[in-house]
Amino acid sequence: MADRVTTPPAAASWLAIPPGHPFGLATLPYGVFHTAALPTARVGVAIGEFVLDLNAAMNELAPDLAGLVAVGSLDVLLAAGPSAWQRVRESITTWLSEPSYRSRVLPHLIPVDDVLMHVPFTVADYVDFYASEQHATNLGRMFRPDQEPLTSNWRHLPIGYHGRSGTIVASGRDIVRPSGQRRTPTGEIVFGPSTRLDIEAEIGFVVGTSSTLGEPVGLEDFSRHVFGVCLVNDWSARDIQAWEYVPLGPFLGKSFATSISPWIVPLAALGDARVGPPDRSVPLLGYLDDAEAEPWGLDIRLEVRLNGWLVSSPPFAGMYWTGAQMLAHLTANGASLRTGDLYASGTISGERADQRGSLIELSWGGSEPLSLPDGSTRTFLEDGDEVVITATAPGPGDSVIGFGEVRGRIVARDR
Amino acid sequence: MADRVTTPPAAASWLAIPPGHPFGLATLPYGVFHTAALPTARVGVAIGEFVLDLNAAMNELAPDLAGLVAVGSLDVLLAAGPSAWQRVRESITTWLSEPSYRSRVLPHLIPVDDVLMHVPFTVADYVDFYASEQHATNLGRMFRPDQEPLTSNWRHLPIGYHGRSGTIVASGRDIVRPSGQRRTPTGEIVFGPSTRLDIEAEIGFVVGTSSTLGEPVGLEDFSRHVFGVCLVNDWSARDIQAWEYVPLGPFLGKSFATSISPWIVPLAALGDARVGPPDRSVPLLGYLDDAEAEPWGLDIRLEVRLNGWLVSSPPFAGMYWTGAQMLAHLTANGASLRTGDLYASGTISGERADQRGSLIELSWGGSEPLSLPDGSTRTFLEDGDEVVITATAPGPGDSVIGFGEVRGRIVARDR
Repeated sequence: MADRVTTPPAAASWLAIPPGHPFGLATLPYGVFHTAALPTARVGVAIGEFVLDLNAAMNELAPDLAGLVAVGSLDVLLAAGPSAWQRVRESITTWLSEPSYRSRVLPHLIPVDDVLMHVPFTVADYVDFYASEQHATNLGRMFRPDQEPLTSNWRHLPIGYHGRSGTIVASGRDIVRPSGQRRTPTGEIVFGPSTRLDIEAEIGFVVGTSSTLGEPVGLEDFSRHVFGVCLVNDWSARDIQAWEYVPLGPFLGKSFATSISPWIVPLAALGDARVGPPDRSVPLLGYLDDAEAEPWGLDIRLEVRLNGWLVSSPPFAGMYWTGAQMLAHLTANGASLRTGDLYASGTISGERADQRGSLIELSWGGSEPLSLPDGSTRTFLEDGDEVVITATAPGPGDSVIGFGEVRGRIVARDR
Repeated sequence: MADRVTTPPAAASWLAIPPGHPFGLATLPYGVFHTAALPTARVGVAIGEFVLDLNAAMNELAPDLAGLVAVGSLDVLLAAGPSAWQRVRESITTWLSEPSYRSRVLPHLIPVDDVLMHVPFTVADYVDFYASEQHATNLGRMFRPDQEPLTSNWRHLPIGYHGRSGTIVASGRDIVRPSGQRRTPTGEIVFGPSTRLDIEAEIGFVVGTSSTLGEPVGLEDFSRHVFGVCLVNDWSARDIQAWEYVPLGPFLGKSFATSISPWIVPLAALGDARVGPPDRSVPLLGYLDDAEAEPWGLDIRLEVRLNGWLVSSPPFAGMYWTGAQMLAHLTANGASLRTGDLYASGTISGERADQRGSLIELSWGGSEPLSLPDGSTRTFLEDGDEVVITATAPGPGDSVIGFGEVRGRIVARDR
């Protein structure tokens, strides 16, 4: 992380935003919302404790750009590509920083408590990687105790698999405890509600610009295709997963729900969060070798809260594989990208015990229950438990880039 | 297969269709096409050597149903559900069988040689199963020679995984040979064009009616949700797959392309193809137990041709898991269905050597090359090779239900 470049403070807003606010002028994340008064989905930008109604503001202040946000989803903006992303961000920055715009912008600011947030884009394909060395090592130790924890391919390629895009839900939606097959410790095969329901704290990358089938996307094209970043909680039923996943990988242990944060933080906001990747222990093939490339490690600091209590602080900066490498690998075989593709990092776990991004690691497979401040203990999630994942990253000067939150509460199926 | 029920012959068409034609009046598959004269995508139905322009015919003959096919894809029809499917099929059957409609239908029949076919619906999520006992056994023997060929879960649940829906392509599209990482026999990790490019002959199930998140779809609801069936060639790069697939399953070895046949055969055409499932060797959990359920085995007979030569004849009737069981499993954890979800059976392989649905099985991992009639041999696919998969099933009386074909030719990336 020694090579992080810091930039001067961004302009200040005429809005009174406390210093260090995660949604200051340097963040400007995009989302889709509605309110009681505006019941049709609209594109918005978070600023302080407000949401800027971008549809309305564009119509008034930049009608030539209004088509990019007209449909109540980010799809058109995502597809429009980097120069459009830059123009829109510059416009919004100007409106919120130059006092001359104040009177025209104020009517389009909505208190954040009044909005309800949606999944902000049409999710095309969803891929989940496995890019944390600590997480993969921890899981390997628990799932395959008789073998080396990292499989022989792990340091050569970012392992990933496709998930179910149709069950990606917005933060705040309750998660119905899944049922499924599992093998009991005595070897019985039974069906019923998962008894080892878990979280996975992850970062997700949102693809804007599509690519052509048969043409790989190189490391250097990451920021031409990826629009931004969100938080992901990839809920996991460990008992279902453990029984089903050999030989074709996770399926029903994951596909019941994946929650994402509603605010997409553009890559343009993450310049000061960029750090060098960690040292890799084996040489990488050319399409993955980022030694000479622009660094795409990201110093994003996550926090995981269970029923309000902080249980983990996973650091994204230490991930073995970067988002740029994941993208290069995902397309190395010629697979094409579509606007709205989402790929996630896999569980983020650091070296310390309090940096592990899943309960199976925090409770070491259930053998070391977590003690919560109310005197209760947890191995896996109980009905009624609520998990909230938040994150921040360094911004220009002493500003903070916030990612908002991804929140979900477990409910029994027979509710 | 002893319990197949045969129904009386369907009505004859006033069109002169030879007996036994795969696209006779009993089939009526749906697709999406354009022609030089009609360049906008339209919904069509195959009948004999013609395609009925369903958009035009509906407008004239059943304007109350025309909205179901108005958008140039099957999406609206798929979402409309079983009673709409039945009304449309009955209408088309009437138009093509009652001579009084002849003069009004004839102008909307287009010679099949004039049409170009599309992927006929928006593919939502794509899942691939692994439902052939022979195929799973053969692959297990080759990939894990030191272990039991079938993993311990195989007879308890239909193993499946999510594939990449964004790289599903229409029959006829060239397939660019993928590059990727592989481990050489001497243990080197290299990147380059796949040297073990393979096919997988499969049946795909197309979901029409969506379902609600958190609510499983039982065996008995299969025909309420699944609209019909197509052919799938799930191209596979075995060298990429073998290196990457532990522990999270196939990824780049599959995601470069999956070809599907352009004609979707509705379940309503497959009544005479229904057969009982095979005997299962272990008891099934309730949600998968079809002993008392309506049988959803399907006597579909596939043929695989390589450069015109028949190399395999895989029988779908012997599959261990039925399409209804796959659907019940896919949703057992509460995962929801969307209109346009596609799930495929996995490679179909029978007991005989000439019934294996992939080259890795036909050439036994490359060790027993196939001899082709032109004197050449094949282990895996060479550039320029063309693979065509076709299929038929028994229809009412002595009629034949055809599935058309899924065709693809391999081209080098540097073309």
